[in-house]
Amino acid sequence: MSFNTFGRVFRFTTWGESHGPALGAVVDGCPPGLALSEDAIQPFLDRRRPGTSRFTTQRREPDAVRILSGVFDGRTTGTPISLMIENIDQRSKDYSDVARAYRPGHADYAYDAKYGFRDYRGGGRSSARETAARVAAGAVARAVIAEVSIRAWVEEIGGDAIDPANFDAEQIDANPFFCPDARAAQRWEVLVDQARKAGSSLGAIVACEATGVPAGWGAPLYAKLDSELAAACMSINAVKGVEIGDGFAAARLTGEDNADAMRPGSDGPQFLANHAGGIAGGISTGQPVRVRVAFKPTSSILTPVPTVTPGGAATEIATKGRHDPCVGIRGAPVVEAMMALVLADQKLLHRAQCG
Amino acid sequence: MSFNTFGRVFRFTTWGESHGPALGAVVDGCPPGLALSEDAIQPFLDRRRPGTSRFTTQRREPDAVRILSGVFDGRTTGTPISLMIENIDQRSKDYSDVARAYRPGHADYAYDAKYGFRDYRGGGRSSARETAARVAAGAVARAVIAEVSIRAWVEEIGGDAIDPANFDAEQIDANPFFCPDARAAQRWEVLVDQARKAGSSLGAIVACEATGVPAGWGAPLYAKLDSELAAACMSINAVKGVEIGDGFAAARLTGEDNADAMRPGSDGPQFLANHAGGIAGGISTGQPVRVRVAFKPTSSILTPVPTVTPGGAATEIATKGRHDPCVGIRGAPVVEAMMALVLADQKLLHRAQCG
Amino acid sequence: MSFNTFGRVFRFTTWGESHGPALGAVVDGCPPGLALSEDAIQPFLDRRRPGTSRFTTQRREPDAVRILSGVFDGRTTGTPISLMIENIDQRSKDYSDVARAYRPGHADYAYDAKYGFRDYRGGGRSSARETAARVAAGAVARAVIAEVSIRAWVEEIGGDAIDPANFDAEQIDANPFFCPDARAAQRWEVLVDQARKAGSSLGAIVACEATGVPAGWGAPLYAKLDSELAAACMSINAVKGVEIGDGFAAARLTGEDNADAMRPGSDGPQFLANHAGGIAGGISTGQPVRVRVAFKPTSSILTPVPTVTPGGAATEIATKGRHDPCVGIRGAPVVEAMMALVLADQKLLHRAQCG
Amino acid sequence: MSFNTFGRVFRFTTWGESHGPALGAVVDGCPPGLALSEDAIQPFLDRRRPGTSRFTTQRREPDAVRILSGVFDGRTTGTPISLMIENIDQRSKDYSDVARAYRPGHADYAYDAKYGFRDYRGGGRSSARETAARVAAGAVARAVIAEVSIRAWVEEIGGDAIDPANFDAEQIDANPFFCPDARAAQRWEVLVDQARKAGSSLGAIVACEATGVPAGWGAPLYAKLDSELAAACMSINAVKGVEIGDGFAAARLTGEDNADAMRPGSDGPQFLANHAGGIAGGISTGQPVRVRVAFKPTSSILTPVPTVTPGGAATEIATKGRHDPCVGIRGAPVVEAMMALVLADQKLLHRAQCG
Repeated sequence: MSFNTFGRVFRFTTWGESHGPALGAVVDGCPPGLALSEDAIQPFLDRRRPGTSRFTTQRREPDAVRILSGVFDGRTTGTPISLMIENIDQRSKDYSDVARAYRPGHADYAYDAKYGFRDYRGGGRSSARETAARVAAGAVARAVIAEVSIRAWVEEIGGDAIDPANFDAEQIDANPFFCPDARAAQRWEVLVDQARKAGSSLGAIVACEATGVPAGWGAPLYAKLDSELAAACMSINAVKGVEIGDGFAAARLTGEDNADAMRPGSDGPQFLANHAGGIAGGISTGQPVRVRVAFKPTSSILTPVPTVTPGGAATEIATKGRHDPCVGIRGAPVVEAMMALVLADQKLLHRAQCG
Repeated sequence: MSFNTFGRVFRFTTWGESHGPALGAVVDGCPPGLALSEDAIQPFLDRRRPGTSRFTTQRREPDAVRILSGVFDGRTTGTPISLMIENIDQRSKDYSDVARAYRPGHADYAYDAKYGFRDYRGGGRSSARETAARVAAGAVARAVIAEVSIRAWVEEIGGDAIDPANFDAEQIDANPFFCPDARAAQRWEVLVDQARKAGSSLGAIVACEATGVPAGWGAPLYAKLDSELAAACMSINAVKGVEIGDGFAAARLTGEDNADAMRPGSDGPQFLANHAGGIAGGISTGQPVRVRVAFKPTSSILTPVPTVTPGGAATEIATKGRHDPCVGIRGAPVVEAMMALVLADQKLLHRAQCG
Repeated sequence: MSFNTFGRVFRFTTWGESHGPALGAVVDGCPPGLALSEDAIQPFLDRRRPGTSRFTTQRREPDAVRILSGVFDGRTTGTPISLMIENIDQRSKDYSDVARAYRPGHADYAYDAKYGFRDYRGGGRSSARETAARVAAGAVARAVIAEVSIRAWVEEIGGDAIDPANFDAEQIDANPFFCPDARAAQRWEVLVDQARKAGSSLGAIVACEATGVPAGWGAPLYAKLDSELAAACMSINAVKGVEIGDGFAAARLTGEDNADAMRPGSDGPQFLANHAGGIAGGISTGQPVRVRVAFKPTSSILTPVPTVTPGGAATEIATKGRHDPCVGIRGAPVVEAMMALVLADQKLLHRAQCG
Repeated sequence: MSFNTFGRVFRFTTWGESHGPALGAVVDGCPPGLALSEDAIQPFLDRRRPGTSRFTTQRREPDAVRILSGVFDGRTTGTPISLMIENIDQRSKDYSDVARAYRPGHADYAYDAKYGFRDYRGGGRSSARETAARVAAGAVARAVIAEVSIRAWVEEIGGDAIDPANFDAEQIDANPFFCPDARAAQRWEVLVDQARKAGSSLGAIVACEATGVPAGWGAPLYAKLDSELAAACMSINAVKGVEIGDGFAAARLTGEDNADAMRPGSDGPQFLANHAGGIAGGISTGQPVRVRVAFKPTSSILTPVPTVTPGGAATEIATKGRHDPCVGIRGAPVVEAMMALVLADQKLLHRAQCG
């Protein structure tokens, strides 16, 4: 596994910068014979696409995907699937300030420290625009795990959480926040609007659930399903925390309260609870696989923040470019994609070893 | 990277079961010429070793490590370092119940679902005993990153947290809880004793900090330092959550509050805060690298829990074998080891690409 | 390392089919700050390009490379370099026969046996056209190992070998055969013309030498420099044999005749011979690294050969499409590329471990 | 894949030096439920074991293997299988000369150039003794591919080849040379005896055939079955060449002579010849998979050879330690092991992708 590749058997490699001509992904190891077309991938990209509401960046990108290889007569051939998305709305001039000073909280300084220089246009490789390539690859992964349903939603924005009692899956795609609680969505509209107008930003928590995962996917000890999910989610821009099942809350429970008791069922054991988030010993249990992901507020804010120049002088920087007031919102389809990519890989790995 | 191997250039592979003759690790890719001996590794194993206080499992294991290869005249040769630890105190009879019923919350059912059967003695490969091999490998990693200091501590047990105002690094090794707050340590003594006597168990939160990491380690996008740390920590038994820097709390901050402003310093930029936990864009910033890890309460409790047999019948199981009342306590040296292993790998990866 | 990826730290992934819209490579792990442009890559592609003489396939492809990512202001940034080459002259109609019968010696049957179906247009993924992507990636690799000079030539066509006494490096690029022996080049003109006109094909042997490789690249035991070179060369279409140094001839020498005696030199040991091809114990010795590669005659011939249809019926097939009468000729720049790719990876690996 | 690990899904890692306390292999990714015991592995080690005739090194090693993990109740559990072989007959004093001067043709100088120093006892990690670990791992691989039969033999020693007309598989284990031609075996007895008494050494060519490999194992383009075999065989000590099928001879055939024509058969296509060695496009065709491997004469000879000291002074060295007069002989069981290891990995990879 190299710097820009993820997966063990079902693998994808992404490439591209925010303001280069294009970005893309190469998906390798995909089983042959699966139906796949650009039309099947595009809807996933459209959910992540910027510029669809005033609550996301105003950069206008059609994010139209092209399949350049690996598909013949509408079916995957088993050879690498090359996916390309052209960058259209680049406006590089917006980013001239970024060349002259490090944006605190962004990767600017770290890239310079590592590589000696950087592509400063829109964050270059560190831009969240890369997640479009993941979402495209994730759409391929979904074809590999047709038995699994994956659904992500936003649980909390700026500390304002949904009420679990109001959870309604139908709502998720009915508002611009992927919010399953209609009342919370109304509150968030005000909240995010305020942040947007103030040039501020808000953090968010995204939850994701995969149902239909059979018991037995995952492996000890460094290919554990939860370990892979943690790596996948923590690799997304702005993510600072990952929980499986009850996560940090489990650390405050007793063994009795945290027990996932079982009873016989017609189709294998039934569990009375799912504190574990569908994973035990790194292997799926047949229950829904659950992950929660914390997105920090983006560091692109209008308030000037003290910083330094590449030359080492003190200065201030305010981020005037287009950006998301709450980057976690568009994180929901990205977390879904990472869940799909991990599960597809684990399915094939399981098949490799256990037939 | 395979099932039981971790790392990209500095890699280790662990093997062994709780009740087999031995367990161990093979460390590959270690730079040559580093001083290494069994005496240098043993102290790290001794910190993790069970049976040292009444707050850990009473299994008595000397955990004496042998170096079988890769060291000549007291120095690493650059070839694989094979580390072996013999199992001494196995008492397999304690585990006969485990063969007859799945322990809820343990890997028993998941292993059977995956592999068709399992080594049920002490959890087999899923036992936390495997972490001894990680700690031994971690001691080798420390020799690779001599410029880095790593320190882990327990921040919370059973929901009872330390008071940051009382943080005293000297305390960490002065009590059986790796607790930096002397007063919290006193409270935990009562708390863990109660749980132990009741045959119950408690969760815990472990924090770990690495200082001395230069800016520039890590890489986009799937070899991000935070992604690697998340994978490493989530692969530890009983871990259900990982945070970098402010973690989930960052999701409740505004962009202004979360900003890590910089000013010029004599030795590169100085940061006014470290919300990011020393990592931006997946690359170290030169600040302390900080991770927090949630351990669930172990599922080994005396209270009978409803479960099923491998044959599918309803039954109950109570865990009478020796176990840790709070497995997170001994997690502290394990998290330290994983931090060292990730950083050693990232150091070498950085050297590979950036000279 | 996955199906279509090669390398450990400096890695490349290729994608694309003979008759798809494009093919390409993603190069990951490239050091930052190296000068790179399309103009620097194109000459290597031009050497491999078809249609430049009557001795290669008449498919006319400009093989113009585009850099889509990883380069900023004319220098590599350290992020993935995406290289794309559009297919222009596809004439898919030529290949309708191939859909109806397996071409013996080609991958047709094997692909169907593996994947259940195949992209039959021009061999799909199994086409030698994929080697364009390798050559593009190889040009990037050369920038990584500027201290090394790599030169390949054709040593033998159809059993007619060069005379080592006539070896003249200047000749290599002075004829369409990459032949260092001007007289042999004249003979080959006749030989290959005959084969071409008869619709037959010829095998060839390509030699490649890298000078300037310092002692110390490579590693025991499964990252040996010779093992990597063997894998790299054997992965090229039509290759059936690989030799390092004296290769099979060494198996007929005594230990005395095969000895590479050393004497002191001003710049490390001097070797009196180089039977070993510059590699001992899998690690470079500082002598020229030498590899020889056997290319079979392409199976695309006009003579009808008995075969079967996908349905299992007996038939015959003659290959009328455009093809190389001696595919080994254009193998020379491909072997050069693979040598560069392996050495770049080994250089970075050595730097990772040995600083 | 790291320095001392081979394979993608079915992977093994070897460790150990010639004169350390032990050597071994960790096999990861083995399917669960396979019968495995030390008794099943030992016969393969016994075939490779030194000291069994006067034609091999006189070092006396029982090469008794211990299984330390991954097997429970006589079956593989799916977790890592740790195999250990203790070194018994080490006589380190024999190798004092080697510390003081580089043996030409050995890895001595290359190791020093790479690592700065080396374990000079018996060649340390570069000793052919490491192949014992491969053979043990190979025995596990055989259990994974029970449908495949693998047989290697020596085809040529010191330039004296077997007569294919005399090929008798029964003979292979009936003489100390793994020679299928009884008359050649008699000649070799004289030949090798002469070399042994003269303190000289001879090269050899080993052939290996796997029958029962179904069509469809292998993958484009860098996981090609032939590419993997080439890497595997070239990683064996003293190997300088690898051929698949007709190998270098194919480079001298025309396309007509090299054609592997097919006709319908009851069980898939029948092939009229097998020039390709059972592999087309990197994927198995269902025919026997054939590889030939060239072993150089060992560089350990009694005749003094000019060399240099680590300090750079001129000297001579003669190798007086115990060694094989023809290291290729014991190469036969090692090539078999590598064939088994590659095929096991490819079988599981095929299952991963193609179900």
